[in-house]
Amino acid sequence: MIVLRQHLGDALRRRRTGQGRTLREVSSAARVSLGYLSEVERGQKEPSSELLGAICGALNLPLSVLLRDVGDDVALAELAAEPPPARRRDVVAAA
Amino acid sequence: MIVLRQHLGDALRRRRTGQGRTLREVSSAARVSLGYLSEVERGQKEPSSELLGAICGALNLPLSVLLRDVGDDVALAELAAEPPPARRRDVVAAA
Repeated sequence: MIVLRQHLGDALRRRRTGQGRTLREVSSAARVSLGYLSEVERGQKEPSSELLGAICGALNLPLSVLLRDVGDDVALAELAAEPPPARRRDVVAAA
Repeated sequence: MIVLRQHLGDALRRRRTGQGRTLREVSSAARVSLGYLSEVERGQKEPSSELLGAICGALNLPLSVLLRDVGDDVALAELAAEPPPARRRDVVAAA
């Protein structure tokens, strides 16, 4: 099963490192503990909506943009997890 | 502040009612309690990634599609929350 918090954590970490910022800087700007932010980025903690808002604020990242990042990531994971389409086998069987 | 769980709940409810299904049907298919699903839809509970996956499964809704729904919704809320651009006032002042 695709686990949202893992994709969310990956997307947050990509945005933070893309800005060349440390966990310490962003956790301090978001007023969350460094350990907590690190756990969120590693997909080990589910951030509440309020804490996610604070982290996005610290990254100057609109929540809608983060959701697009995560949605694209999850769409790729869904494609990778999908079994090959049945139609494909039908075509081969009919050939 | 934009609160993700409220937009998530709205999007889940829209998808469920769009399928003409009841809270009872979907909560039973997702193996979550009816009260829990109702609280999630009203934006009162943060669903864990696992329970969100189960609810999406019960709705036959890929998580990526739900995230797109929610992202579009949040983008509109961000636009509505934005103060009028400063440029606009400059143009008036300069006229």
